[in-house]
Amino acid sequence: MAAAAKLVLLVAALMATGHCSCAAWDLNIRMPTTRAIEEAAARLQEGMAAPLIHALHPLVGSAGDLGRRAGVPCDSWRLAVEAYNKRDWKTVPANCEHYVGHYMLGRQYRLDSRVVADEAIAYAEGLKLAGNGKEVWVFDIDETSLSNLPYYAKHGFGTKPYNATSFNEYVLEGSAPVLPETQRLFKKLISLGIKPVFLTGRTEDQRAITVTNLRRQGYSGWMHLLLKPIGFKGTAIGYKSGARQKLQNAGYVIVGNIGDQWSDILGAPEGARTFKLPDPLYYIG
Amino acid sequence: MAAAAKLVLLVAALMATGHCSCAAWDLNIRMPTTRAIEEAAARLQEGMAAPLIHALHPLVGSAGDLGRRAGVPCDSWRLAVEAYNKRDWKTVPANCEHYVGHYMLGRQYRLDSRVVADEAIAYAEGLKLAGNGKEVWVFDIDETSLSNLPYYAKHGFGTKPYNATSFNEYVLEGSAPVLPETQRLFKKLISLGIKPVFLTGRTEDQRAITVTNLRRQGYSGWMHLLLKPIGFKGTAIGYKSGARQKLQNAGYVIVGNIGDQWSDILGAPEGARTFKLPDPLYYIG
Repeated sequence: MAAAAKLVLLVAALMATGHCSCAAWDLNIRMPTTRAIEEAAARLQEGMAAPLIHALHPLVGSAGDLGRRAGVPCDSWRLAVEAYNKRDWKTVPANCEHYVGHYMLGRQYRLDSRVVADEAIAYAEGLKLAGNGKEVWVFDIDETSLSNLPYYAKHGFGTKPYNATSFNEYVLEGSAPVLPETQRLFKKLISLGIKPVFLTGRTEDQRAITVTNLRRQGYSGWMHLLLKPIGFKGTAIGYKSGARQKLQNAGYVIVGNIGDQWSDILGAPEGARTFKLPDPLYYIG
Repeated sequence: MAAAAKLVLLVAALMATGHCSCAAWDLNIRMPTTRAIEEAAARLQEGMAAPLIHALHPLVGSAGDLGRRAGVPCDSWRLAVEAYNKRDWKTVPANCEHYVGHYMLGRQYRLDSRVVADEAIAYAEGLKLAGNGKEVWVFDIDETSLSNLPYYAKHGFGTKPYNATSFNEYVLEGSAPVLPETQRLFKKLISLGIKPVFLTGRTEDQRAITVTNLRRQGYSGWMHLLLKPIGFKGTAIGYKSGARQKLQNAGYVIVGNIGDQWSDILGAPEGARTFKLPDPLYYIG
């Protein structure tokens, strides 16, 4: 009954404090008291070994019930987003702020990304390359190669409308951290002889800081960094598919294409195979 | 501390029994003893109110940790399947059998399906119809309109290779239950004046039993039931897109298309909007 005893201690401690907060990305994220019991359950799932300080940090992974209690089945919402059933949404449901926060700050986001990268690497390793150096792989940047989670964690995890001013201020810091699973794919492709091309919705005037940010985070060896022309009118799909068409017209073969938005990977030529990384923070149509 | 006391009782009862079994779809599904503690945690998430008999039934929803413990991050695997990152897989990872079983038998599958149906209904309600009765909506059958879960629950939840003989025996019973969320969409579309068309990979020789099964489960009012010609050679995408093309050639407008496989909803003409229901049981390329 040692495990049960430990469980009681955890629950008692948690119920006594009512709620707790912890440092994650240097932020205090506060949880409603009524959820404390669920967190105890979640920590149990983490293996009984997680110290109390982690009470609010990694947690549930795909914490379906957290959101469900609040009236929105956040786990189902996230699945619908990833499977492209949910489209043209403006903001994360308000009740899912904590859910998305836990998902992104916890280990589930990393695990989900890892499976995508593993799949992409397995696919790339299975390719028969022509040996002429013409095979390329298209990488989106935001939420694919670099993470803007430090920004979104301070701005409601996607529950607040997009604010171009404050987001661009953040971009110009050049401090966005790497998405490690994507970088693993990036480096593997270079070792295989497949050339990475960055294709981003960031605009041409952000080229210098984007290069700086990418280099700071350990990216090197890309072939092109394609940014959106200032004043471009049109959809994300139109812009990105057009850019891929130009690559193809220049004789390149797009063997793979990875992004966090469906608009990164839809629209001919898509690339021979596409990969969708998770992104419950925002939607770009 | 009433909740904590209840928790201790739950855990103690569970640890005393070691594991328990319960009737779900008239099956006994046995859980490893070591997972009992996680189930207690999951039941806590169910709201402390779930009776002990449900110990193995609804459970975790998206029980990431269950699979993770066994060496496969089943939650990430399922997300990768639904987001079309994982393709051409033959069987569910062996370690994810329990995970998939819990997902399908529990409430998470229903909830995930509900969000898809809600989204489809919202889309359909927003359509401006021409009023000429030409708008149709394509429905897949297996794991979309009808569920073969009673079969898959007896055959390892997709972990075993497809067995055409035993599966066809099951189909010929005509006993596949309805997927309620799909039926809700189906009935809503009829009320809106959009005509449902079934388009299935089932073959023409299964027409009679398929009609019987659909009617038994409360489906009526469809416009066409399109089955695959015996001896058809070609891919699922080729067959289904070809059938949709014929519909379009006959003057119909495919305003929506719903299926559980990506091969149901890829391939021009896809339909004006597509919807992907969850299916972690099998992959049809």
